[in-house]
Amino acid sequence: MEIIAFGDHFLQKQTPKDIEEIKPYLTGDHKFWLNITETGDAELMSELAELFDIHPMAVNDIRENRQRPKTEDYNHFILIVVQMLYSNNHGLDIESEQVSIILGKNYVITFQETPFDIFDQIRVRLENPNGRMRKFGTDYFVYALIDAVVDEYYALLENITLRIEMLEDSIVSRDKQVKLSEIYHQRKYIQQIKKVIWPTRELLSVWRKSENPLIKKRTSPFINDVYEQTVEIMENLEMQRESITTLVEIFMTDISLKQNEVMKTLTIIATIFIPLTFLAGVYGMNFEFMPELSWKYGYWLTWLVFIGISIMMVFYFKRKKWF
Amino acid sequence: MEIIAFGDHFLQKQTPKDIEEIKPYLTGDHKFWLNITETGDAELMSELAELFDIHPMAVNDIRENRQRPKTEDYNHFILIVVQMLYSNNHGLDIESEQVSIILGKNYVITFQETPFDIFDQIRVRLENPNGRMRKFGTDYFVYALIDAVVDEYYALLENITLRIEMLEDSIVSRDKQVKLSEIYHQRKYIQQIKKVIWPTRELLSVWRKSENPLIKKRTSPFINDVYEQTVEIMENLEMQRESITTLVEIFMTDISLKQNEVMKTLTIIATIFIPLTFLAGVYGMNFEFMPELSWKYGYWLTWLVFIGISIMMVFYFKRKKWF
Amino acid sequence: MEIIAFGDHFLQKQTPKDIEEIKPYLTGDHKFWLNITETGDAELMSELAELFDIHPMAVNDIRENRQRPKTEDYNHFILIVVQMLYSNNHGLDIESEQVSIILGKNYVITFQETPFDIFDQIRVRLENPNGRMRKFGTDYFVYALIDAVVDEYYALLENITLRIEMLEDSIVSRDKQVKLSEIYHQRKYIQQIKKVIWPTRELLSVWRKSENPLIKKRTSPFINDVYEQTVEIMENLEMQRESITTLVEIFMTDISLKQNEVMKTLTIIATIFIPLTFLAGVYGMNFEFMPELSWKYGYWLTWLVFIGISIMMVFYFKRKKWF
Amino acid sequence: MEIIAFGDHFLQKQTPKDIEEIKPYLTGDHKFWLNITETGDAELMSELAELFDIHPMAVNDIRENRQRPKTEDYNHFILIVVQMLYSNNHGLDIESEQVSIILGKNYVITFQETPFDIFDQIRVRLENPNGRMRKFGTDYFVYALIDAVVDEYYALLENITLRIEMLEDSIVSRDKQVKLSEIYHQRKYIQQIKKVIWPTRELLSVWRKSENPLIKKRTSPFINDVYEQTVEIMENLEMQRESITTLVEIFMTDISLKQNEVMKTLTIIATIFIPLTFLAGVYGMNFEFMPELSWKYGYWLTWLVFIGISIMMVFYFKRKKWF
Amino acid sequence: MEIIAFGDHFLQKQTPKDIEEIKPYLTGDHKFWLNITETGDAELMSELAELFDIHPMAVNDIRENRQRPKTEDYNHFILIVVQMLYSNNHGLDIESEQVSIILGKNYVITFQETPFDIFDQIRVRLENPNGRMRKFGTDYFVYALIDAVVDEYYALLENITLRIEMLEDSIVSRDKQVKLSEIYHQRKYIQQIKKVIWPTRELLSVWRKSENPLIKKRTSPFINDVYEQTVEIMENLEMQRESITTLVEIFMTDISLKQNEVMKTLTIIATIFIPLTFLAGVYGMNFEFMPELSWKYGYWLTWLVFIGISIMMVFYFKRKKWF
Repeated sequence: MEIIAFGDHFLQKQTPKDIEEIKPYLTGDHKFWLNITETGDAELMSELAELFDIHPMAVNDIRENRQRPKTEDYNHFILIVVQMLYSNNHGLDIESEQVSIILGKNYVITFQETPFDIFDQIRVRLENPNGRMRKFGTDYFVYALIDAVVDEYYALLENITLRIEMLEDSIVSRDKQVKLSEIYHQRKYIQQIKKVIWPTRELLSVWRKSENPLIKKRTSPFINDVYEQTVEIMENLEMQRESITTLVEIFMTDISLKQNEVMKTLTIIATIFIPLTFLAGVYGMNFEFMPELSWKYGYWLTWLVFIGISIMMVFYFKRKKWF
Repeated sequence: MEIIAFGDHFLQKQTPKDIEEIKPYLTGDHKFWLNITETGDAELMSELAELFDIHPMAVNDIRENRQRPKTEDYNHFILIVVQMLYSNNHGLDIESEQVSIILGKNYVITFQETPFDIFDQIRVRLENPNGRMRKFGTDYFVYALIDAVVDEYYALLENITLRIEMLEDSIVSRDKQVKLSEIYHQRKYIQQIKKVIWPTRELLSVWRKSENPLIKKRTSPFINDVYEQTVEIMENLEMQRESITTLVEIFMTDISLKQNEVMKTLTIIATIFIPLTFLAGVYGMNFEFMPELSWKYGYWLTWLVFIGISIMMVFYFKRKKWF
Repeated sequence: MEIIAFGDHFLQKQTPKDIEEIKPYLTGDHKFWLNITETGDAELMSELAELFDIHPMAVNDIRENRQRPKTEDYNHFILIVVQMLYSNNHGLDIESEQVSIILGKNYVITFQETPFDIFDQIRVRLENPNGRMRKFGTDYFVYALIDAVVDEYYALLENITLRIEMLEDSIVSRDKQVKLSEIYHQRKYIQQIKKVIWPTRELLSVWRKSENPLIKKRTSPFINDVYEQTVEIMENLEMQRESITTLVEIFMTDISLKQNEVMKTLTIIATIFIPLTFLAGVYGMNFEFMPELSWKYGYWLTWLVFIGISIMMVFYFKRKKWF
Repeated sequence: MEIIAFGDHFLQKQTPKDIEEIKPYLTGDHKFWLNITETGDAELMSELAELFDIHPMAVNDIRENRQRPKTEDYNHFILIVVQMLYSNNHGLDIESEQVSIILGKNYVITFQETPFDIFDQIRVRLENPNGRMRKFGTDYFVYALIDAVVDEYYALLENITLRIEMLEDSIVSRDKQVKLSEIYHQRKYIQQIKKVIWPTRELLSVWRKSENPLIKKRTSPFINDVYEQTVEIMENLEMQRESITTLVEIFMTDISLKQNEVMKTLTIIATIFIPLTFLAGVYGMNFEFMPELSWKYGYWLTWLVFIGISIMMVFYFKRKKWF
Repeated sequence: MEIIAFGDHFLQKQTPKDIEEIKPYLTGDHKFWLNITETGDAELMSELAELFDIHPMAVNDIRENRQRPKTEDYNHFILIVVQMLYSNNHGLDIESEQVSIILGKNYVITFQETPFDIFDQIRVRLENPNGRMRKFGTDYFVYALIDAVVDEYYALLENITLRIEMLEDSIVSRDKQVKLSEIYHQRKYIQQIKKVIWPTRELLSVWRKSENPLIKKRTSPFINDVYEQTVEIMENLEMQRESITTLVEIFMTDISLKQNEVMKTLTIIATIFIPLTFLAGVYGMNFEFMPELSWKYGYWLTWLVFIGISIMMVFYFKRKKWF
């Protein structure tokens, strides 16, 4: 639990131990930010709910992890649930962590389970006495939080773009054996990110049109900006998804082409030698009366025939553009 | 037939034998819940319709099984038809059972054919004198019923997710022969569930915007919550459906790859031995004048040629990366 | 031409010969139903148009067959055009027949070309003096007609479902050779039905929102019901269409799998015997100096080698899980 | 340039040489139709623009060919741009010709480059003194023009339907070699027509909802009718497009099936003869000690073995349903 | 930095060195166009922002390159961000350059990084004292800019259409080996262009409905026109995308067909010679008692059998239409 009260010319940090220490802020002159990491502490949560008059359903949404990003307007406060996404396990897995935000008239409460860098970044911006963070209202503060969360999505997007390009290179150059499951793995990532970004976009769209006085007119260009960032990420993800479809198609065609090549080699070898072998078999027959066998140049003639047939075949295949 | 009357400080259960025993409740002070399992009893149904002034079309909807989930606003009451889904036959089949709910000013009537656990759960919650179930109105009661029904869908979703993951593992590891029909079976499940959840989502969307005074403002956060649950289930089903499409593609590619492998083996063996067999055939010919045959090391030279050709071929294939 | 006048306590049938006999009904106290089968009779049609003040465009719609189902509101009357669908030629073809309905204040005019069973059913229901058919207005009468038409669609839907299931069974069990064209035939049926049901659904959607006083509030639950039936049929058709897509995929995979199987057999036989044949060829060569030929057990040793190579190959294929 | 003035009891044709001759009509009592074929004449066009107060953008739209069909409301006049489609080069190509229409209070101006039959048809209808063409306003006149244009689309649709059916027959009966490019050619036609019909449909949809007094209430059933015709054409084109997709699939499967058949023949022949050839090779070996060779019935026994193996193989393939 | 002030009878160009030289224009009587190429100069940008009261978010949008095309209404000015697209590297790459436009009451500010031809074209049009550029307001000026940008898209579209047609010809005629990656390259271009055009279309759609007095009624036909151009480009891109899909399908089928052809040749050769080789092998066996061997015409009879079998086979394949 951490509380930062701030105003145009004021900044005060405290780490309150119980709910009693928070109460004075509520009636104070300054805006304040309350950051809760103990969402698992049922008692604390119910005390907070009472103090800030948080609807039981909102408390549920905060406590249950893995919620869909959403915003709920409870008139005297607005609940925002977003999902932090970060890659883990050397970029092989995508983890999500829920960040719930309550925007009140002069306070912002954030609920999280793991301390993120983005919160440090917010703390640093609060230090700047001339920054918008201090001068603008609590709605700008919430915007800054969401903006920081959305910025992290870009990193993931770049990660995926890079990996897909690497896969594409590997397939086209045939250097490295690519497994289909690797390609589909990227598709799963995209799905996971889309599942989070889509409702985030919706959430921001709701904010844009919100008429709750907690969201001031002044903040709307900023919200528009994050909104458009989510649209852009969605579009890029969609493009990457198409790239994957293309990749799968190239992959499949490559298999077909390789098989085709193998087939052609077999056909050429077999088609040339099968008739020859037959001919050799003919002169290996043990009939008593086979005039050719006693010809003086019979053997050499046979070789001429062998070579003649082979050359004809090769010409035929060349004309058919088989190799 | 079972009737439970309840209020803030009041709870009374009864199993009325005929319609006469219900009448006093209608004029009583308390909210009551009437649970009917005999929807097949035409006489009882028409008596109830008369008593509660239920529109004949609503009665039809209740009596006909396998209705699409829907809500109909008849001003003095609201009809809700939902479908309970549960897996049967060791998770191989999905069965549906219709639950019809009539929400009146101070009463809730439920119609079902099979006694479900979810109704027990409702009964237990009614025992709690401080629960919202007792304090809130009949609309909250209906919400609790729908919520319980939707919760069951999650179980099915998990079941399907698990099975699809198992199929995926089996295909990738090639441990077990997977049949395409098994994969499509899961697709059919998803279709069946979607067919129920989609209109349920619609139904809740209608409730959210309903202006009928029977649905109080206070209940709206709860309805929003179930609504979002259905959206989430839909999204997850959609993701699972895409997983299946991916699975089918991997399955198909796997067949192609296996065939490719088989082809390559055939080609390598055939391409190496066909020319050798031809050569052996040549020296099996019975021409009288074949000088090589009388060479002292002719036989051993032939073996050298055999081995030489084989090694060349293997090198050629290696360079072509065929194995 | 057939006319039935009806009221709460009144029912009178007549088959008027010309337009003059209809006129008295127009000014009479009772609702009446006029059923015209001679839509090809231009003169009659223009007399009717004048008598009932039917817009020339509406007359066109009635006379032209194979119209898209639609409803047109002409204030003093509403035109409804629906299509009866029935299967023909032992369920192999789907035929459509247009039914045009004009709903006026106290009259309903139906135009058809072929007498259908559904009209008989309406006549029977009119006999019942307590039925809604007699008591409710002309809009209920029209609802009953549309309902009867939509009910027929269910029969077609079941027919298709059955056929698709049969095809599915045949493919999976491989009992009977299924042709791809049979599968696509079902797809065409579905398309044909959808082409009719989609605008019918739209038509009913327009009726639901219609504010024309000809459609009374009281009829709306009934219209809602037919509307939902069309939605349900659409959803089922969509499901069947997906089933067909699945079926085609299974069909294609089956071809691939069969080809794979054939390939494997060829490969196994060829791969085993090609080296053996080569070896036999070697010892069939006629070199003068081939020491093995004069070994006492040379022949038997060769057989040992033959058997040895075969067994090795079989083990190799077993390990590769080729059979 | 051609001008036709008309009223209920009045019809007068003229081919004015310059703009001056048109002016009297503008102030006359009668509606008139001005048909311009010289859209390339810049001077004439600018004089017309001044006379009828046509916005420069509208003039641009008229002069530029290959515009998307559209309607623009300029208050005192409405511009409609449609595209005539006709098949050319024995039905192998589809050509389009732009027809621009300006609907004013008492005049209609049409711009075209090539004289079409549809204009003759309009002239004939104007001759009829009792026709709606004369009695109704200029908006009906424009409707009649658009209706004539849309009617031409039906001819194209039938043409395509016929060709697709022919292709289907050829593929199914395997009579004639069909090239994939022929199938895709039809797809291109459909695309071209859709590109014109889609905005035409939109254009009519705008007219339906137009509140410009130039479009009278009375004409709306007629506009509805053309609108529905475009919807129907779109639906049919969509169906034909699906037919083509189906056709491609059947085409591909046919290739697969043929290849399968070829494979099976090869496999059967090869699988039967490869072991036999091996056996013949064995008894062609020249070992000194091969007891079988001196058996009296050795040769006949070998034939028995040959026949025995062949029969076994055939039975095996029969059981596997390979032929 | 370049400034052009203009009015009906007035045109004055200047290249101001600092912000002070711009100030007089702001209070002047004439409309003026300020073109900034130094968007990287942070100080200049902040001075401009202060002078013209530009919102910090708008400044951000201008300075950040590669923004999605968009329009933002800040009441006293409107920001438009568009992307110039031009092909580079001999038409192999598509580059984009951002052009930001600020439309104020009597001024237009443009921000770019590279000098484009389109700006020269604007300068030339400003020279014409009777042109709309001078007479109409600043909103027309902005329209002219966007129109010039959109015109450039057409060039790209033509480029792509040409390349796709060339690829199509190469595949159909089989003259040149086409690589799948070349086809997909075109798909990527289309995606890139669509990514820019789609939001440009949206932007223009917003302008059409804008009620900001900065956009005058008079300009709306012009905006409609550019809007429709973007719609047309989108439709053409969509058509080209479908062409590519078709191309890929033809490409794949071509591989299948070629493989089929190769297979057939192999099968025909193998199927004819395998039985013959077997027969030759039979008469190469060394059994002591083989009556045929001592027949006088045995050898010639065998040849007759060889030829007979071959002819039968060829007839069989002909009947099966294998070649």
